[in-house]
Amino acid sequence: MDGIGIVGGGIAGLHLALFLQKNSVPVTVYAERKPDEVRNARLLNTAAHWSNTRARERELNVNFWDDVHTPTRCFHFYVGLPKPLWFRGDHEQPGICIDQRVILPRLLEEFESRGGNAVYGQVQATDLDGLSEKHDLIVVSSGRGSLTEIFPRIPEFSPYTRPQRLITTGLYDGIRYTDPPGVIFGASPGHGEIFVLPYYTLDGPVATLFFEAVPGGGLEHLMQVRYDDDPKRFEATMLQALKDHFPVVLDYVDKAKFKVHRPLDILQGSIIPTVRRAYARLANGRYVMAIGDVHVVNDPLLGQGSNAASHAAFVMGNAILEDGLTYDERFCRQTEAKMWAFVSDVTEWNNYMMQVPLPMNAVQMLLVASQVKPVADAFATNFAAPRGNWNVLATPERTAAFLHKLGIEPPVLAPAEPAGAG
Amino acid sequence: MDGIGIVGGGIAGLHLALFLQKNSVPVTVYAERKPDEVRNARLLNTAAHWSNTRARERELNVNFWDDVHTPTRCFHFYVGLPKPLWFRGDHEQPGICIDQRVILPRLLEEFESRGGNAVYGQVQATDLDGLSEKHDLIVVSSGRGSLTEIFPRIPEFSPYTRPQRLITTGLYDGIRYTDPPGVIFGASPGHGEIFVLPYYTLDGPVATLFFEAVPGGGLEHLMQVRYDDDPKRFEATMLQALKDHFPVVLDYVDKAKFKVHRPLDILQGSIIPTVRRAYARLANGRYVMAIGDVHVVNDPLLGQGSNAASHAAFVMGNAILEDGLTYDERFCRQTEAKMWAFVSDVTEWNNYMMQVPLPMNAVQMLLVASQVKPVADAFATNFAAPRGNWNVLATPERTAAFLHKLGIEPPVLAPAEPAGAG
Repeated sequence: MDGIGIVGGGIAGLHLALFLQKNSVPVTVYAERKPDEVRNARLLNTAAHWSNTRARERELNVNFWDDVHTPTRCFHFYVGLPKPLWFRGDHEQPGICIDQRVILPRLLEEFESRGGNAVYGQVQATDLDGLSEKHDLIVVSSGRGSLTEIFPRIPEFSPYTRPQRLITTGLYDGIRYTDPPGVIFGASPGHGEIFVLPYYTLDGPVATLFFEAVPGGGLEHLMQVRYDDDPKRFEATMLQALKDHFPVVLDYVDKAKFKVHRPLDILQGSIIPTVRRAYARLANGRYVMAIGDVHVVNDPLLGQGSNAASHAAFVMGNAILEDGLTYDERFCRQTEAKMWAFVSDVTEWNNYMMQVPLPMNAVQMLLVASQVKPVADAFATNFAAPRGNWNVLATPERTAAFLHKLGIEPPVLAPAEPAGAG
Repeated sequence: MDGIGIVGGGIAGLHLALFLQKNSVPVTVYAERKPDEVRNARLLNTAAHWSNTRARERELNVNFWDDVHTPTRCFHFYVGLPKPLWFRGDHEQPGICIDQRVILPRLLEEFESRGGNAVYGQVQATDLDGLSEKHDLIVVSSGRGSLTEIFPRIPEFSPYTRPQRLITTGLYDGIRYTDPPGVIFGASPGHGEIFVLPYYTLDGPVATLFFEAVPGGGLEHLMQVRYDDDPKRFEATMLQALKDHFPVVLDYVDKAKFKVHRPLDILQGSIIPTVRRAYARLANGRYVMAIGDVHVVNDPLLGQGSNAASHAAFVMGNAILEDGLTYDERFCRQTEAKMWAFVSDVTEWNNYMMQVPLPMNAVQMLLVASQVKPVADAFATNFAAPRGNWNVLATPERTAAFLHKLGIEPPVLAPAEPAGAG
């Protein structure tokens, strides 16, 4: 038996592979695409790495971009209320926003250059029985269709059965970074959100326009515009959406230089937030585990995907070091519980914040944060410690108690106001 | 609202009280008995504090007995097989065995001398509504009948509906300590177990004879003998039980000096191992939490009661520091999950080891431990880290994998042998 087999070359899989390699556990990565294929592929996502993930990257000695790209020091929050909110929350420790087509191939090459074994090609669910007999444990860290579906969906943790946002994200030239450099996180109540991330690509710095459109709202049409059909019309549509919903962003756009960075730098799609059992028993009686998006996939609304994946990789890596006698149902159940202890907060917070209208206590928090800088700073910082934010937002009573502790009376909102906040 | 109210003055309650006090959280202890009443009471139990609990005592600055009593450096294991096993396993860090009538009054007085508020008298379940309105949170750490029963029993974690052992424990003069000083842990297959603990009382060192009798086995009659009816006959019965089942212990007994230390130093009874929900909602809508024995009570077979209670106190204390905005269902559920992450291993291991006959993989481990000192040492040391022992014993495959890693073939046992092992 040859150690741990990891199916998938995303953040979860590669952080786990590097973690196990560092701890001298034999590990094989089954990656669908070779590093150069990933580099030349379409945009994978527009994820952010907050300080919690950066700390893990340092632990694995793969923090290769600390000196080449502007750190993300803050959120500039915009909320399009009748009287718009526009305020800043600083991260205690900065994050970094980098194209996964930069990160993932480099991590895979690093894994190989440190002596790791990578096998390239697609793995199907039908391959798992055979693979499971070659390895002590198979961990599925990314996969489509059947490979994900062997892990049963847990309905009580998966409140949505259809996408709550329609995503149009892309990389653009001609967008100036904020000062201090950070993410513009805008909300247009009832219509959706935008993230303008200071992004690093294979050929230098760009910015994202990452739209999350509420189905049926005023941004829904973005999903219908295809860049490949008419690049100019696509770009004009994005600018118009900024003007209509996030006018503050226009201050950073140089219209003369504004354009999609490269044709493959546009991604459109949607996600049904889904929590799955993190393990499954194969026909041969052996267990396989799910990690990262295969275990829990959330809408990218709160930018937690990479961070949850990396956290899970370390939880599973530590479980393998601590126990790892036999990868039986007990191992799977306990490891799932440890991963869920973190990602349950991410999931619940994420699903809560996707509601339209946004719940009144979340609107109250944004109103207070717009006036009390330490509240805004804590909210921004807790993107790297999601339980901190969810503890404060999980119920109206918790928000009231939090504000009460700070000596702040929760702002009273007219019923019409939250109804419009999305 | 006046901070945290703790009902009960056992280890769980007092470690939590001292933890919160140290962290400047207002706390009130509702103790049934005053310190001197506890000192003059009947023997409460014959518990041990392993190194994990001692570390917490140091953290609370209540390690008052480090210099006055012999530490417990090892287990001397005896298994009454046809060819008896008699071997030693050393603790990595020593434990200490002290009468709770020494510890608990001292902790309560210490809590008060550090400015803590203690209220004396019995609390009934019907008092909880009123108390819950005086405090942010009520934690029930000990209690009888109705006070425990408000927390529902969880049948899937509570496999037994009647006691698996009949307990006769007591403190005796005339028993010499082992060299090195430690616990004699004897098993008489099919009949029960004994613990000879080097114990410290209010008037100096003694030893326990702590019998765990299997119902229907050859030690069951111990439960019927009453010290108060006929002290000499009681003492003679205990000596005879040693001779019949644990003859190695007789080597440490000076028959001329052998006697029960004081009339109140005998305790007889039994426990139904029970896991309860760690929280309940009162009629007024407020939540109360259970901790320690009120949450999970195990048979004392593996000496984990005080250690599990103290661990839970620190878990709950940390949860109060980390969250503690409002003590709602979310707080209770998350804190229960954190306590259960530790005590589930204790409970499962304990319930497994109580089976008669002892499962074959546990017998194999004892046989190997009797010949391979590092295995015996690890087994002894893991009484302070129960997950370590349970990981190795939870299934026959795990035991085999553990031995395989050490290059040891699991000993093959004749079917008759495990059938006799208790």
